[in-house]
Amino acid sequence: MPQLLPQFLPRARLRGLYVITDACSGGGHLAISRAALNGGARIVQLRDKGTSLPQLVPIAREVHRLTRAANALFIINDRADLALAVGADGVHLGPDDLPVAEARRILGPHKIIGASCGTVDEALAAYQAGADYIGCGAIFGTQTKLDAGDAIGLEALAAIVNATLLPVAAIGGVSLANIAATREAGARMACVISAITGAGDEAAMTGAVRNLVARFDR
Amino acid sequence: MPQLLPQFLPRARLRGLYVITDACSGGGHLAISRAALNGGARIVQLRDKGTSLPQLVPIAREVHRLTRAANALFIINDRADLALAVGADGVHLGPDDLPVAEARRILGPHKIIGASCGTVDEALAAYQAGADYIGCGAIFGTQTKLDAGDAIGLEALAAIVNATLLPVAAIGGVSLANIAATREAGARMACVISAITGAGDEAAMTGAVRNLVARFDR
Repeated sequence: MPQLLPQFLPRARLRGLYVITDACSGGGHLAISRAALNGGARIVQLRDKGTSLPQLVPIAREVHRLTRAANALFIINDRADLALAVGADGVHLGPDDLPVAEARRILGPHKIIGASCGTVDEALAAYQAGADYIGCGAIFGTQTKLDAGDAIGLEALAAIVNATLLPVAAIGGVSLANIAATREAGARMACVISAITGAGDEAAMTGAVRNLVARFDR
Repeated sequence: MPQLLPQFLPRARLRGLYVITDACSGGGHLAISRAALNGGARIVQLRDKGTSLPQLVPIAREVHRLTRAANALFIINDRADLALAVGADGVHLGPDDLPVAEARRILGPHKIIGASCGTVDEALAAYQAGADYIGCGAIFGTQTKLDAGDAIGLEALAAIVNATLLPVAAIGGVSLANIAATREAGARMACVISAITGAGDEAAMTGAVRNLVARFDR
């Protein structure tokens, strides 16, 4: 059996800038994904609660093609069935989505499962349930996700980073002004949506990604 | 390898009264399921677009336990991932859900996949994509599903029944007054929601199911 070099193992790639394509925030999934990957993001998450699945399947396949070509990870928000159908690298699960343990049973040991956590207890529960990474937030205030709750701040982020061995993605209000601070607090990934989609067209979004990557990647 | 008797094969059980538990229509999933099974329904579908998945998983497991005890089929609306997680017999997919071919890839050859169809062309497409049965409607006017479109009537039902070899479930406005007519048009299953949930408490719902079964089952 051939050995995989560590950098090709999916979990080893849980690092760097993590771009969430939210079609509601302007841009469109494909333009945001291209900008993310051209700018140096390592992970792209497709998040879309509004588009019907027959329309979303071909979009997901195209984003997957783009991420594969860039050796980036492709994560799908919420829908484990869609992730299986298009062969994505994994799913990200929020508090209203399928529980992590159920998703693990469906997805098997090799798919990546991320779980949204706002407290140390939630992080420990996600770890014990079999999550591969933690999406921790909202760190700062956010306008993108109005149900994300109050900002928990960098100290709470550091506490969650230290609670388990899982890599942590900082999410919620991450911008050029504060992304380095999330890294200092121990986040191995930083999630951005509006910091990119607010930049303008695809070229401007690519530039915004590049600037964020320069301040976050080690 | 032990041989399964035909009556225990899932697809052979695609017949009889098919009760959809819609929590919005009053009753609650468990009470509707108990009434359905005690009254003689052969298939129960869990449909719930509002409840979060962590709350829905234990409900789905309990409905599954009830259907197994009654040797009835347990189908889940829309979510193939939830169906896999709780080991349901299959899924029912509408026009905004995962396409049938994608669901088949995820669920494998043994799970049941139903597809909503309103025309012969849709029925042929569902058949070719690998569906196991067709949910055909709305046959009559319905108040339960406001996005179900205009009623297509019994002639359209008969045309869809004759279009493929798949068993057809008549859905939409089916009641004690017209359920026998759906059988005459060739439907092998008849789906009901409000005809049951409108009956009142669980005992009244059980009686309503019994009366519907008496007019439909051969």
